[in-house]
Amino acid sequence: MKLMQFQIDDIIKTALLEDINYIDVTTDYLVDDEKTDTAYYLAKDDGVLCGIDIAMRVFTLLDDTARCEILIRDGEPAKKGDIIARITAHTRALLKGERTALNLIQHLSGIATATNRCVKLIEGTKATIADTRKTLPGLRVLQKYAVTVGGGRNHRYNLSDCAMLKDTHLDAYGSMTGAVTALREKMGHTVKIEVEVGSLEELREALDLGVEIIMLDNMSCEQMAEAVKLTAGRAKLEASGNVTAETIRAIAETGVDIISMGALTHSVKAFDISMKMEK
Amino acid sequence: MKLMQFQIDDIIKTALLEDINYIDVTTDYLVDDEKTDTAYYLAKDDGVLCGIDIAMRVFTLLDDTARCEILIRDGEPAKKGDIIARITAHTRALLKGERTALNLIQHLSGIATATNRCVKLIEGTKATIADTRKTLPGLRVLQKYAVTVGGGRNHRYNLSDCAMLKDTHLDAYGSMTGAVTALREKMGHTVKIEVEVGSLEELREALDLGVEIIMLDNMSCEQMAEAVKLTAGRAKLEASGNVTAETIRAIAETGVDIISMGALTHSVKAFDISMKMEK
Amino acid sequence: MKLMQFQIDDIIKTALLEDINYIDVTTDYLVDDEKTDTAYYLAKDDGVLCGIDIAMRVFTLLDDTARCEILIRDGEPAKKGDIIARITAHTRALLKGERTALNLIQHLSGIATATNRCVKLIEGTKATIADTRKTLPGLRVLQKYAVTVGGGRNHRYNLSDCAMLKDTHLDAYGSMTGAVTALREKMGHTVKIEVEVGSLEELREALDLGVEIIMLDNMSCEQMAEAVKLTAGRAKLEASGNVTAETIRAIAETGVDIISMGALTHSVKAFDISMKMEK
Amino acid sequence: MKLMQFQIDDIIKTALLEDINYIDVTTDYLVDDEKTDTAYYLAKDDGVLCGIDIAMRVFTLLDDTARCEILIRDGEPAKKGDIIARITAHTRALLKGERTALNLIQHLSGIATATNRCVKLIEGTKATIADTRKTLPGLRVLQKYAVTVGGGRNHRYNLSDCAMLKDTHLDAYGSMTGAVTALREKMGHTVKIEVEVGSLEELREALDLGVEIIMLDNMSCEQMAEAVKLTAGRAKLEASGNVTAETIRAIAETGVDIISMGALTHSVKAFDISMKMEK
Amino acid sequence: MKLMQFQIDDIIKTALLEDINYIDVTTDYLVDDEKTDTAYYLAKDDGVLCGIDIAMRVFTLLDDTARCEILIRDGEPAKKGDIIARITAHTRALLKGERTALNLIQHLSGIATATNRCVKLIEGTKATIADTRKTLPGLRVLQKYAVTVGGGRNHRYNLSDCAMLKDTHLDAYGSMTGAVTALREKMGHTVKIEVEVGSLEELREALDLGVEIIMLDNMSCEQMAEAVKLTAGRAKLEASGNVTAETIRAIAETGVDIISMGALTHSVKAFDISMKMEK
Amino acid sequence: MKLMQFQIDDIIKTALLEDINYIDVTTDYLVDDEKTDTAYYLAKDDGVLCGIDIAMRVFTLLDDTARCEILIRDGEPAKKGDIIARITAHTRALLKGERTALNLIQHLSGIATATNRCVKLIEGTKATIADTRKTLPGLRVLQKYAVTVGGGRNHRYNLSDCAMLKDTHLDAYGSMTGAVTALREKMGHTVKIEVEVGSLEELREALDLGVEIIMLDNMSCEQMAEAVKLTAGRAKLEASGNVTAETIRAIAETGVDIISMGALTHSVKAFDISMKMEK
Repeated sequence: MKLMQFQIDDIIKTALLEDINYIDVTTDYLVDDEKTDTAYYLAKDDGVLCGIDIAMRVFTLLDDTARCEILIRDGEPAKKGDIIARITAHTRALLKGERTALNLIQHLSGIATATNRCVKLIEGTKATIADTRKTLPGLRVLQKYAVTVGGGRNHRYNLSDCAMLKDTHLDAYGSMTGAVTALREKMGHTVKIEVEVGSLEELREALDLGVEIIMLDNMSCEQMAEAVKLTAGRAKLEASGNVTAETIRAIAETGVDIISMGALTHSVKAFDISMKMEK
Repeated sequence: MKLMQFQIDDIIKTALLEDINYIDVTTDYLVDDEKTDTAYYLAKDDGVLCGIDIAMRVFTLLDDTARCEILIRDGEPAKKGDIIARITAHTRALLKGERTALNLIQHLSGIATATNRCVKLIEGTKATIADTRKTLPGLRVLQKYAVTVGGGRNHRYNLSDCAMLKDTHLDAYGSMTGAVTALREKMGHTVKIEVEVGSLEELREALDLGVEIIMLDNMSCEQMAEAVKLTAGRAKLEASGNVTAETIRAIAETGVDIISMGALTHSVKAFDISMKMEK
Repeated sequence: MKLMQFQIDDIIKTALLEDINYIDVTTDYLVDDEKTDTAYYLAKDDGVLCGIDIAMRVFTLLDDTARCEILIRDGEPAKKGDIIARITAHTRALLKGERTALNLIQHLSGIATATNRCVKLIEGTKATIADTRKTLPGLRVLQKYAVTVGGGRNHRYNLSDCAMLKDTHLDAYGSMTGAVTALREKMGHTVKIEVEVGSLEELREALDLGVEIIMLDNMSCEQMAEAVKLTAGRAKLEASGNVTAETIRAIAETGVDIISMGALTHSVKAFDISMKMEK
Repeated sequence: MKLMQFQIDDIIKTALLEDINYIDVTTDYLVDDEKTDTAYYLAKDDGVLCGIDIAMRVFTLLDDTARCEILIRDGEPAKKGDIIARITAHTRALLKGERTALNLIQHLSGIATATNRCVKLIEGTKATIADTRKTLPGLRVLQKYAVTVGGGRNHRYNLSDCAMLKDTHLDAYGSMTGAVTALREKMGHTVKIEVEVGSLEELREALDLGVEIIMLDNMSCEQMAEAVKLTAGRAKLEASGNVTAETIRAIAETGVDIISMGALTHSVKAFDISMKMEK
Repeated sequence: MKLMQFQIDDIIKTALLEDINYIDVTTDYLVDDEKTDTAYYLAKDDGVLCGIDIAMRVFTLLDDTARCEILIRDGEPAKKGDIIARITAHTRALLKGERTALNLIQHLSGIATATNRCVKLIEGTKATIADTRKTLPGLRVLQKYAVTVGGGRNHRYNLSDCAMLKDTHLDAYGSMTGAVTALREKMGHTVKIEVEVGSLEELREALDLGVEIIMLDNMSCEQMAEAVKLTAGRAKLEASGNVTAETIRAIAETGVDIISMGALTHSVKAFDISMKMEK
Repeated sequence: MKLMQFQIDDIIKTALLEDINYIDVTTDYLVDDEKTDTAYYLAKDDGVLCGIDIAMRVFTLLDDTARCEILIRDGEPAKKGDIIARITAHTRALLKGERTALNLIQHLSGIATATNRCVKLIEGTKATIADTRKTLPGLRVLQKYAVTVGGGRNHRYNLSDCAMLKDTHLDAYGSMTGAVTALREKMGHTVKIEVEVGSLEELREALDLGVEIIMLDNMSCEQMAEAVKLTAGRAKLEASGNVTAETIRAIAETGVDIISMGALTHSVKAFDISMKMEK
């Protein structure tokens, strides 16, 4: 996996402490300490799986004798009824880790599935789907990863790694030209500049300044098509605002390069998975 | 607020470190260190607000001179176009904290709004809406709080504070009667027992054992109505499974006490809010 | 063990950092890095052992080649002179971990032993021994566990998982009836209510309200016997205050259900154990 | 206070999270958010107070409007019935912080009181009372501080700041002379050497080596008196083992310099204090 | 300051815990708790100051009554004998915080001063000085900030925010063209690509691929001048390797855009500052 | 190694999070997940190696299948061109950990090498080289360890473990005699006292007080020789101030016991090492 194990472990431990805190009164008082079982994870919907290694890690953190067999890997499609993985471990660990593992894999698979649906909707166009900084506290690393697993691309990870000039910055600074010039004099040379524009006039100013990325903010498809023509490849164009399953194809067909969608991470529908014990 | 400030601060700091990490290249290089501004938060949808103190805290953590005026408080309704709060602070703090504050308040208001919608749908029945342990890693304290703000009630907080016997436990232990008896011999006296039942027969066994709460798992409304009659107040009945906006009223009218909904916290739709600078 | 390994590891690491901080100047400068030895743990008193896995974990955290043989397990009796466990590890790890391991096991065995003494004193009555929230900062999880190992039961783990109405709450709210009614309208359905009463009159009010647990605060044995009769099984009765080795049997014989004792965790006498090197 | 505020805050926050975790269901659902009250802390026994600033800090962490008036300071005597401090704060903060504050101050005052009792028992002799490394995980900084507040002195804080040669080190190294010589060649020059001796013969060897401190391990008073004579001020002599209220005076009168007692920190009896609300 | 206060506080607290741990035995036993003093910070060398707010924060963290007057701010020149700041605080806080404050400000001013020296050496050329990822563990945020204070620019902050193709990547992938193409297909659109080249041939391949930044690895000045001519502004050229005070001017005069220097952060000479008490 | 593994792991994890944060865009997108390689560490200068286990640990933390063969161990000399270690691991782990591992080993070997150079310069004299508290935030444990690896000795680790009276303390207290007497009455018996003196008169006062260590502050070699004669072994003498490669031999020849040097840790020149992939 691309992410570092200890980074993920910290998130899992936080989740386990939230969910167990002291002991699992039901399991710890009822289930024999030595008992082992095999559980399996079952897809209850169709989509793209994400987070299987992370879910399995919940069990190895609770029980270092846990053994997992993964049948569907991150990025692979799962169909309703598919068995995703099998874990053999102490029964106590299986029951104590169940909810935490599901909470993680259902959220991440929800993101990957929604992203993938958008990717498919624009297939054949040159546009790509990108996430945003509209992520949930403490979960950005996982959420951004899930977007890539679904076939999307990552927008900037944080405020340090790409400059983005919005209204508020331009208001605070005066002019786009002044702001871009100032940034170029001070910023590190590895950082790109993106400028948000609301009109073709602003687009022209941005193009003249040679900025790398231009966000077309809430423009109509007609305006965007015009913008694409005007730009003629001199900058990457990013469509933002009012992107839905209904509108996304038309947006992509305007010729923009990137379609960014906050909903991929701020309004996630969990992907339905359940854990069953083998008999 | 019910939550402890330092507990919330830790979540906010985690979010700010994710979003800023080093510096905000755009803002820190463009905006004068001494400049101050006033921003306001604007509702762009109708719903129940939650997390306003938490969102405002983002700014006081970044700038101890920040001053906030809150116009709509947690639990109060917000309408599209309403101004929720005004913050006067250093412009840098306003721009750097904007996304983190919005990510928090939009998520929590999304939960409160969805909960409140369900609460309204069952008004007049005796049922209450409850959350579950299907929460997002690291966010349980906030998500459970948001459910209460929306008018819902909290189910158990974690595996330590209520025993819940599911299939898996019963399979692991043998019989419901044996399991309940064993728990009562070992558990602390402050912990309630909830048993999941799938049939009226199991319900009878649970009632005979005098357990405090019985979960009716994926039952039809007819079965639930029957269960209510059979129970006659001897235990709290919790309906779980297949609860949607379409079915919830009918479920509530069966006479169950609690309707628990994982979607309140696992599939949250962000409530739309934006930050604007005052001119 | 019921507790999660990583949760215990954090406590052990904190203890080791307190005790070592940089290096062990004596051991690290004198003992050869490669040298290994076998040490054993010796009981120097009679009691109930608790914390042996935790003590052994100290050595595996310092030296992943450490191998432990546990002869007396948590909850089993230890007699003066008994060998509790043997550890073979690098000599440096044995000497550096000795004090931390002993501090943990002596404290927890002290709690288990004291609890067990009380449990034995009331044998044959229906009462059980319970702990309280009078625990030491950072050690609740371990102390509560040790009480169960000694045969006691856990009272509520924290302020979230059981409501307890004391004078101060009733003063703040007005009346017991009002307070109980308000709690039932707001609290989650998994949470029990305990009310502290100082007189039979208050007991009657509590019983009429149907609260699950009633604490008899500093009552005489006569009053408690009366309370038991009056209650007739309608609620769990908890005796609290002035519980000592001398009084506990008489209290239990009044027929109360629970006897809670803060001293189990707030005034712990360490159980004497020492580590010896095998020759 | 000698300790750093933020260091103490971390311990308090850990304790509050253990005790509250999510919310205080009783207080948060019953007590009005705006209500304020005054509480006072009442001594219910005689002793030496310790931890009053720390206890008060609990309330200011929960409520930054809390105002405390401290009447008896760390190190001052408290008598049964004395009012120790008054706090005016939001009622919710008073009730939520009560247990955590008491757990801290009762434990630390217990240590200070027990230490002070020993200090008084040996008054007039040249001996001083010292603590050991037999402290509770995570609490060393507080426990060692409490010993000084009671009039005792601190033994080494951890394994880095003083070398102590015990049997096990000598066994591992071969000879006392060899070990001391080796340490002097490698250790920093700011670190003292203490050697544990079990006989006058060993004492002589240690004196010839010029070590700064010699621990007389489980010697009789006669042996210790002999050791004092033999030493004639050439090293500090520390008595260790079998120190009780009954034996301590006789030990001190042998002329030893330090009497170290593990029980001061490993077997603490809480000092009884309670919080009351002013009417 | 550009950095977030709480982020810096964590570094300061770590440093204070390293340096104090328990108490300052000298100060805490000798200096009266109530005593206050004024200290001043004195430059003992010429250079560019950095870290003054951070150093002053040490004292406000130890003593919230501390008041600081800053006379020379970050980025301003300091001359031997200049008073940099004055702090009035409890004497204990002044003495306990002295070393930690100095360790921070001396290190950061050392970086700013060395950076500034290089910046001055290349004045009049178009080249800018950049740092690298050769920073000290835990100190990157401070070290990178200090470079900007000295007039340098930041290279990429971490491995997430700019792709850099070195030998090892090319070896692992096969060809530069293949690698760049693959990256463009997968990476986020906000990330620039830098390629390390060792010959003009490789430079041509990189230019043809349109990569944004090209690192000229250990080239002679002649080669670099050639590279500049060949590039003709189509990419930013970064000189790396063998950059010293003696060579830097010649390198800059070849016309490269960026000169990156690991030594700015991996081999820092502390800037001499001392703290004095006012009489 | 003398240091505890988990303590080092925390530093490494901090460094990896700084350097990777999310993913390594270059490596994670280009290098196949399954690919493995062997890399070796190459000395590019002559010196004393330090930190090899720490550097290797970076790779095992990133990849638990990593296997390291260490050819030159901590404290052993390395010559330009020597291979220090070989690591076989997943290529991704090798590339992602490279910089962090190098940053650690280069810094620590830089300290060990500089220390060793000083140790060699004074060979044959009775003086030893000591470090100071002038360390970098968060790195004291590693830096102090590196000094010992280079053949130096550790001065006090922190303000708790040795009293040192400087001007400021004496000013705050009144007189040296008073201050030393007060410390002896309050401090633990395991703590030595060091006094800083600026003249032979002060030296005499310190000697009369019998303090264990005396720092000769910025004295000339003549004064120091005089001081050595005057002291005649009654205390350890520490030379401090103006210690350079040029002056150190002369200082050592005055007969002082310790020469302490802040520059060993505050002005570290990285030792040049690079990582290469085996073909």
